[in-house]
This record gives sequence, C-alpha cells and structure tokens, in this order.
Amino acid sequence: MAKKASSRLEWRINVPDGTSKVLEPESGAVGKIWVGLKGCMGIIVLKVWRVLENAWHIGVADPRKVIHCIKVGLALSIVSLFYYMRPLYDDFGGNAMWAVMTVVVVFEYTVGATFYKCINRVIATFLAGALGVGIHLVAEQSGDQLKPIILGISVFLFASAATFSRFIPSVKARFDYGAMIFILTFSLVSVSGYRVVELFELAHQRLSTIAIGTSLCILVTMLFCPVWAGCELHHLIHQNMEKLADSLDGCVTEYFKENGSEKDLNKKMQGYKCVLNSKAAEESMANFARWEPTHGRFNFRHPWKQYLKIGASLRNCAYCIETLNSCISSEIQAPPCLRKHFSNKCMKASSYSINVLKELVITIVKMKKSSNIDVKVAEMNFAVEELVGALKSLPTTHFIATTTGEESTKAKAEGVEGSEHPSPIMKVLPLVKVVSMMVEIATRIGGVVNAVEELARLAEFKAAKDGKPKQNQPTDKLVADH
Amino acid sequence: MAKKASSRLEWRINVPDGTSKVLEPESGAVGKIWVGLKGCMGIIVLKVWRVLENAWHIGVADPRKVIHCIKVGLALSIVSLFYYMRPLYDDFGGNAMWAVMTVVVVFEYTVGATFYKCINRVIATFLAGALGVGIHLVAEQSGDQLKPIILGISVFLFASAATFSRFIPSVKARFDYGAMIFILTFSLVSVSGYRVVELFELAHQRLSTIAIGTSLCILVTMLFCPVWAGCELHHLIHQNMEKLADSLDGCVTEYFKENGSEKDLNKKMQGYKCVLNSKAAEESMANFARWEPTHGRFNFRHPWKQYLKIGASLRNCAYCIETLNSCISSEIQAPPCLRKHFSNKCMKASSYSINVLKELVITIVKMKKSSNIDVKVAEMNFAVEELVGALKSLPTTHFIATTTGEESTKAKAEGVEGSEHPSPIMKVLPLVKVVSMMVEIATRIGGVVNAVEELARLAEFKAAKDGKPKQNQPTDKLVADH
Repeated sequence: MAKKASSRLEWRINVPDGTSKVLEPESGAVGKIWVGLKGCMGIIVLKVWRVLENAWHIGVADPRKVIHCIKVGLALSIVSLFYYMRPLYDDFGGNAMWAVMTVVVVFEYTVGATFYKCINRVIATFLAGALGVGIHLVAEQSGDQLKPIILGISVFLFASAATFSRFIPSVKARFDYGAMIFILTFSLVSVSGYRVVELFELAHQRLSTIAIGTSLCILVTMLFCPVWAGCELHHLIHQNMEKLADSLDGCVTEYFKENGSEKDLNKKMQGYKCVLNSKAAEESMANFARWEPTHGRFNFRHPWKQYLKIGASLRNCAYCIETLNSCISSEIQAPPCLRKHFSNKCMKASSYSINVLKELVITIVKMKKSSNIDVKVAEMNFAVEELVGALKSLPTTHFIATTTGEESTKAKAEGVEGSEHPSPIMKVLPLVKVVSMMVEIATRIGGVVNAVEELARLAEFKAAKDGKPKQNQPTDKLVADH
Repeated sequence: MAKKASSRLEWRINVPDGTSKVLEPESGAVGKIWVGLKGCMGIIVLKVWRVLENAWHIGVADPRKVIHCIKVGLALSIVSLFYYMRPLYDDFGGNAMWAVMTVVVVFEYTVGATFYKCINRVIATFLAGALGVGIHLVAEQSGDQLKPIILGISVFLFASAATFSRFIPSVKARFDYGAMIFILTFSLVSVSGYRVVELFELAHQRLSTIAIGTSLCILVTMLFCPVWAGCELHHLIHQNMEKLADSLDGCVTEYFKENGSEKDLNKKMQGYKCVLNSKAAEESMANFARWEPTHGRFNFRHPWKQYLKIGASLRNCAYCIETLNSCISSEIQAPPCLRKHFSNKCMKASSYSINVLKELVITIVKMKKSSNIDVKVAEMNFAVEELVGALKSLPTTHFIATTTGEESTKAKAEGVEGSEHPSPIMKVLPLVKVVSMMVEIATRIGGVVNAVEELARLAEFKAAKDGKPKQNQPTDKLVADH
C-alpha cells in the first residue's frame, strides 16, 4: 500500500500558516478524467506560454514589428470609423466592406510590399472590371440563352490564362497579386446578375472603396515609422558582409589560438550561416524595393538588382568559409610548430581580407566611394602572396627536415602527434587546406569588391571627402603626356 | 540631301510581283509621332512575344502547370453555375460572392497548399465570427454611446495581436493565412451595422458559402491530376541527390580528363547549384505536405521534417562540390604525371561515393531499406582511405625526386610547367586540394546516409526483397554469445 501511494502523483499545497496539505486525487473514473484534463491543460498552457515567450523575444529583438502591429490596428480602426460615420456607410452600403478588406490584405510590413499590393490591386481591379463590363455588354446582345454560356467560357478562359501567367517568373515577381485580383474581380463581375447600368454603379463603388483603403494604407505605412524594403535590403547586405568578416576572423583565430575563450568565438564563427540562407529574403526585398518612391538616400531607380549580385558574391565567399570551418573542426591537425610557423602570415592575410570587407561595409553604409579600397585590396593580395610564398618555401625547411628525422624527434619531445609518425605530407595537409582556402577566400572577396564597385558606379556614389580621390590618374597622364 | 535620306529609317516592302517599294515616312510632326508609335508598338509586341515564348517553354517543360490552370478555370466555372441556377442565388443573395472569392484565393497548385488554405480559412472564419458576435453582444449591452468605442478597441486589439502572431515562425508556418482571415472576418463582423439576429444569418451564409467554395476546391484539386506537395518534395530530394552525384562525377571527370567533350560535362557539373538554392522550395513544400491526407505511399504522418534534414545534408555536400569545382577551374594545375598518378584512385573514390548516393536515391525512390548500403559505404570509405594512403606515400616518391632534380628534367622533357620551376609543394597543392575535398565530400555523404537511414526508420521503410536483409547482425550476435 505504501508503495502504491508513493507511485502516485501528489498535489501538495503549502498554506501560509505553515501547515501543508496533500490534495488527494478523487477516486474512480471522474478522478482519472480530471487528472487527464489537468494534464492536457498543462500541456496547452505550456505550449501557449512558450509561444508567448517566443513572441516576447521577437518583439524585444525588433520593436518595429510591434509598431507594425499597432499600425495595422490603427488603419483598421480608422477605416472602421468610416462606418460609424453614417454618411459614408449610406453612400456605399454593404460595399463599404471592400475598404476594410483592402486594408487587411494590402497592409504589409514594408512600404514597398504595401505599394506593390496597392498598385496591383487598383490596376487589376480596374482592368478586370472594364473587361468584365465589356463582356457583359457583348453577352447581353446575344440573348438570354447564350449569355451564361458566353460568360462561363470567358471566365474559364481568362481565369486559366491569368493563373498561367503567375507561373512566368517575370510576371510572378511583379504582378502575382495583381493576377489573383484580376481573376477575382473578373469572376465577380461576370457572375453578378446585375444589368450593365447597375454594374457601372457597382464598379464605381468598388473602385472608390478600394481607393479609400489603399490610400489609407499608404498614408499610415509611410507616415508612422515607415519600414522601407530598400533600406532593409541595404542593411541586410552590409550586415551580412560584417558577419562574413567576423566569421573569417573567428575561424582563423580559432584555428591559430593557443588557449581560447571558445564561447564568444563560436557565436562569431556561425555568422556565415546567415549569409548562406539569406537568398530568399534578399530577392523578395529587392522585388518590393523597386516599388518604393524616393526615400532617404535612395532614388526611385536605385539599382536594387545589383544588391542581389553583391549578395550572390557574398554567398560565394560564405561557401568557402564553410569549408574553412570544416577544416578547423577536423580531427587531424597540423603539428603546433608548423601552425606557429604559419600563424603570423595567415593571421595577416585574414586581417587584410577582413580590412577589405570592412572597407566595403563602410562604402555601402556611407554610400560613398572609398578612396583607399585599391590600396587595401593590394595589401590583401600582397599578404596572400606572402602566405603562398611561405607555403612554397616549406619543403626546404620542413620536408627535408622530416625526412632526415629532425622533426619527428622534436615532435616526440613535445609529446604531441609524434607517436603515430604521420607522413610529412599528412602533417602539412590540414595547413595546406587552410592556406588554400584563405587564398580562395581572398579571390572571392575580389568578386565582392567588383560587385560593390559596380553598385557604386550604377548608384553614382560620391567620392569620399577624407581621402585624395583619384589624384594618381591625372598625374600619370601628365607624366605620359610629357 | 542624299546624306540626310540615308540617315533615315526606311520601311521597304517586297511586293510579290518582284518589285520593291520604299515606304516614305510621312513628313512633319505627324510622321514623327507615327514612327515613334510604331517603335513603341514594336517594343511592346517584342516584349509580349518574349513573355509568350517563355510561357510556352514553361508549359512544355511541366504540363501539370497547364492542367492546374484548366483546373482553376473549371472550379470557377462550376462555382459560377451556382449563380445561374437561381435557387442558390436567391438563398444567399450578394453573399454568394464569397464562394467565388474562396475559390479564387484558396485554389493552389498543390493539394497540400489548397488544404492548408481551406482549413485555415474555415477555422479562422468560424473563430473570428464567434468572437465578433460575442463582442457585439457585449457592446450592445453597454448602450449606443459605448458601442462604437468597445468595437473599435476590440478591432484594434485583436487585429494587432493577430498581426503580431504572424511574425512568430511556428505560427507563420502553419497559420499565416488563418491569421489574416481571422483579422478580416473579425473586422467585417465588428464593423457591420447589423443587429445580432441579422449577424447570425450573415455568419451562417458566409460559413456556408465558404464551405461550398472550399469543398469544391478540394474536390477539383484532388480528383483531376492532383499535385501532392509531399510527392513533389520526395521527388525534389531524390532529384537533388542525383544532381549531386552527377556534379561530382562531372567535376572529377573534368579534372582528370585527357581530352574532353566539355559541353555535356559542363551542364552536368552545374547541377549542384540547384541543390544550393532549393532550401526555400523544400521548406514550403514540407509545410504544405503535412496538411495532406494519406496518398499513394505516404501516410498522413509521414516524417516530412526529415526530408528537410536530408536536404540540409545534401546542401552540405553541395558546398564542398562548389569548392571542388573552383579547384578544377583554377589556373594553376598539378603536372600531368602527378595527375595521372592520382587519376585512378580519385576516380575510384568518386565513383564509390557516387554509388552510395545512387543507392540512397534508389532507397528513397523505392521507399525500401537498402540491403547493401553498408557495403557501399564501406567501399567508399576504403577507396577514400586508399586515396589518402596514396597522398601519404607521395613525399617519398615525388618530393625527394623533385629535390634531387629528377622530376624537373622530366617536366622539361615534356615541355610543360617545367619552365617556371615551381616549388614541389606548389606542384602538388592543386591535387592535395582536390583529394582533401574528395575526403570531405565522402565524410559529408556519410551525413546524407545517416539522414536517409533516419528517414527509413521514421517512415518505417520495408527491407528490400532482393538482398539478404540484416543477416550480419544476428550472426555477429551469435558469435558474441558463444
């Protein structure tokens, strides 16, 4: 009996007066159901709690999301006001609902996305409405029997064609929502049993309510803390660049560290993973950004597509850093003395590569041409060449040493990795991998530099003031002329 | 004058009787506008033509997309029929429009996406409707003055909360559309000026029309050539695996080829790029797949999430193949004699790796546990070890040879790469890179094998009939027992 009791779950309450009370489970089926229900409730409460906790973290991490929610609430409340003010309601009647609907489906997080949906919705509604009225006119001419057939066939044809257009990538990128609204409006108009005169009235009401809804959305989204898709893309690109620089720094430091503070480094090293996975976000933002009007430092025709190219070149680098990372975490490592030999040169090459990336970050953040990017690229290339040079000179210093046995006795004295007598090439292999990855990364950073320079050309970045912009060229020319 | 005429555009028509006729541009402003208009028209026609050509290629490449469009047209035509049959229209009046609207917004390419939207729409409409009616009841109790305030505040609060929930990843993945429909319905109900009795009528009508729309969509999408998101995901994963195998094959063949048919290989080699970019597609398909009922060989609770893990491990491989690819296209290459030395071993390792991938493809396609995957993995590992062994033994055969000058005279005799006297390590460097990438790829293929085996366990794949399934384990056990 004691055993049975102990295997039961006890619900104990500590009452404030110091005594404690055991809640005895109710006996029989009712009790079991009660316990089961309590369990279920517990799980549900726990899940809801986790979601809430998650939501809290999201809100704290990016307060603009909270602001967006308030903006949606605000826009809906304002559009509701139209209803409570009777005159408008009496004008539009039940169709005033379209204004609410427009606000709900059109209001998006970024200004660009809202514009995209608004413009698509207005144009598609207008086009489909006009076409629908036209076909109604034709159908009415052809008698009562043919009318449903003509209408049915036209709905079938136009809906199929518009649906297919959504599969074409160029249409999908710009007019996906418009195609859907086109089908919707066209079907509604064709199907409505009204006569053409009533139809004009309906079309007028629908267009006006949609106009009210869209203009309200655009006002609210642009006036209260606007989130511009273009700015977000701009921010994402230079943030990714910084993350890449940090990852590279983290990887190389981790590899050549003597005794490390691992936790900080590990977090830093994982930054490249964001870069690997940001393609979809970049593309959707670039799509929305081109709908945005001139804002801040960005014109209407800012070359957003070039950002995608920079993103692609960054991902190219990230692939290499991923491989570099796997070199670092591999079990077989080069002997410490060899690592020390390369440590300086590798750190130098990586720090110059990071300098180039950081300079590019500054170029993008300030939107000004860098005056000394060429110098930094040259420094990086020089450091990489030095590194390759060190690798070239390795055989004379180490291979021969190894084959004559010096190295192995040294390793034995240190008590590391010497016991297995790995062949000399296996000893340098991990280092060779790291070095060759460093070289490859530097090459790919060159690709990023080109992409950013192309952006500077397309977006007509101004030259930075602090440097001496392009003084070399005229001098060279002068020299050449004389 | 002659000069001026020659600088003009000429429109010449070849008339069938052999004479040709120059179309003289009309003089003055009208002529210029006409030419300008013709130019504009030409550009527009060209653009439309290109879009149509593009559409044609898309249709030919995947006829199911054309079928989808026909299905959408069909569903809309059927729902229109309800209108022409007066009884239904008289029942629902203007609200019958909701059925059309439901079909337009809910009908998606895959069955899973359609289910997701249907279920979300129905549940969200029901919940929001019930909540809206409840709040209407409360608001009505508190008098005419307070009513709009209570309704306004409730719209603001619920809309903001629902909008925020769309930022939570777990909610976004499953209930994004539901949250939007919730806001929509709740606002519409709150805002409608009806009394509660009328509201019940409205709610009933809206729910029935939505039920008609959704059930029609589900019927059409499932009965006519259904496209299952689950099947698509399954297909995508094993297709990507094949592409990876082909890329690996292409890369290694390209590297060690003596004189190659490049065009075919190049296309084959680029397959890994699809793998790199398929993350978003995989995730959305996995999201939709879990809404699908049992179909074909897939249960309702098929472990779709595991497919994402397989996808991730495939991408892991693809990163390495990307690096391997860049090794191959780099300018500095190992001398031919060295390449020949490694050619066999490398080809062997790659072909065994490809065998493993192909076996995994068969496992996934047939959904049966492979009986000899262990053997193939062992073969791959053995081949890789051999390759590493060859690398280990390299210094004694080549480094020493180089330092004593044998190799350089040989290279001179061949007339290749010998002129620059590259240091020995630089000669082997490209090969070392390729070999180490091969080793890394084999390791990562091991990760794919684990992910696929986990899938086989979770989805309870049956053992293949042709092999001798798991005969080793019992034998081992017997040996251990005795």
